[in-house]
Amino acid sequence: MRTRSLKLTLEYDGTDFSGWQRQPGRRTVQGALEEALRTVLRHDVEVAGAGRTDAGVHALGQVASLETPSDLPPSKIRAALNGVLPDDVAVLAVEEAPEGFNARFAARAKHYRYRILEGPVRRPLELRHAWHCRHALDLERMRLAAARLVGTHDFRAFAREPDTRASTVRTLFALDARRDGFILSLDVKGDGFLYNMVRALAGTLVEVGRGKLAPESVDAVLLARDRAAAGPTLPARGLFLVEVEYAR
Amino acid sequence: MRTRSLKLTLEYDGTDFSGWQRQPGRRTVQGALEEALRTVLRHDVEVAGAGRTDAGVHALGQVASLETPSDLPPSKIRAALNGVLPDDVAVLAVEEAPEGFNARFAARAKHYRYRILEGPVRRPLELRHAWHCRHALDLERMRLAAARLVGTHDFRAFAREPDTRASTVRTLFALDARRDGFILSLDVKGDGFLYNMVRALAGTLVEVGRGKLAPESVDAVLLARDRAAAGPTLPARGLFLVEVEYAR
Repeated sequence: MRTRSLKLTLEYDGTDFSGWQRQPGRRTVQGALEEALRTVLRHDVEVAGAGRTDAGVHALGQVASLETPSDLPPSKIRAALNGVLPDDVAVLAVEEAPEGFNARFAARAKHYRYRILEGPVRRPLELRHAWHCRHALDLERMRLAAARLVGTHDFRAFAREPDTRASTVRTLFALDARRDGFILSLDVKGDGFLYNMVRALAGTLVEVGRGKLAPESVDAVLLARDRAAAGPTLPARGLFLVEVEYAR
Repeated sequence: MRTRSLKLTLEYDGTDFSGWQRQPGRRTVQGALEEALRTVLRHDVEVAGAGRTDAGVHALGQVASLETPSDLPPSKIRAALNGVLPDDVAVLAVEEAPEGFNARFAARAKHYRYRILEGPVRRPLELRHAWHCRHALDLERMRLAAARLVGTHDFRAFAREPDTRASTVRTLFALDARRDGFILSLDVKGDGFLYNMVRALAGTLVEVGRGKLAPESVDAVLLARDRAAAGPTLPARGLFLVEVEYAR
């Protein structure tokens, strides 16, 4: 039977999910999506997700791929999926994809955002979508450090439990810090990320912003290739998978 | 014993509260605040709230007043309260107020916002803080209707179960509609609001935006003084008490 490849773009609030990846007995985004697809397409489906986000991590533009013999038009599939998915996950787009398209392996770049609520008082309306830092942060210092992290480096110091046989070299295309009122956003784009890498990069930039680490000292952190040399891994609630890029 | 008056400004996410007003056996903002004040000030406290927000309604700037014999400095009271309050409510400011200040009776104006997520697909990250309208809304039509509602009118058609003995005349100082991406915000400022009035105003403007009601027909709705003539009461999740104004 001929099948076709579909590309799904998803938004979710990760707060009440045990992450992306399907796990028995846990509420996961992949699990909820596959269950909805089974209902709509009337066959078992295994999806590939571009970024396997951890528990509590959100997505504005996660991408998943699948194969189906169904000839339902994409717009009908989107509407039907949103009708059966739980409220905290939605399919923003369903598109036809090149034959054999795999959202994970075909990804050229990923864009993550880490949101920090800065200041002495927490803001309850930001609670689920930002990490609260009580200390003032020096944005200029953070930008100086960020600029030194852009490029191709061995990011082992920023990886939790890296596979010692695999390469920990990655390329960051951009790492920008900006402030909008009491929210400070770190936007990072790269060809791939190690486990917990964005949250460790954010934790290191916060150490720089607080004055506990000099901006130029991130060079030594990279060279150390030791997780203890970098800053802490910040909580999941501030992290968003914003976009996944593919070759045209 | 000499007491002093304090003015507290609060932010809260109303999702998990049964509204502002203390009720036995229910989780309310007033109840949580009075419990925190008892812990911090070491005496029983009854606060007056400027706006008695319903279950699920949020606040960016609710104001509460209280009397206390405590001589703790305001900044210490704020820090101590935020240390004991639950995460979904926070005290943004504590200030000395004129003797006998009552946040409810001294209020000159209140500013509410109603947030609408517009479009065919829900956005899970906006879920708790906006109401989802699947239909496209015509902002210009909504603005024309809004302009006709500004001023002093009998708003009985927009009140749920109005007290028939009390006046239902109120003054709206401003009612603005604006769009920012897929979020449409209605900002309304007035000298006072009837029960559910903002949500009924929003529901009526949505009927106008969808083309089901002509902008100029809101004149007839006002004159009818009948709740059935206006649009529906929109859900609490989109409503925010933004600010309360007092005489200088």
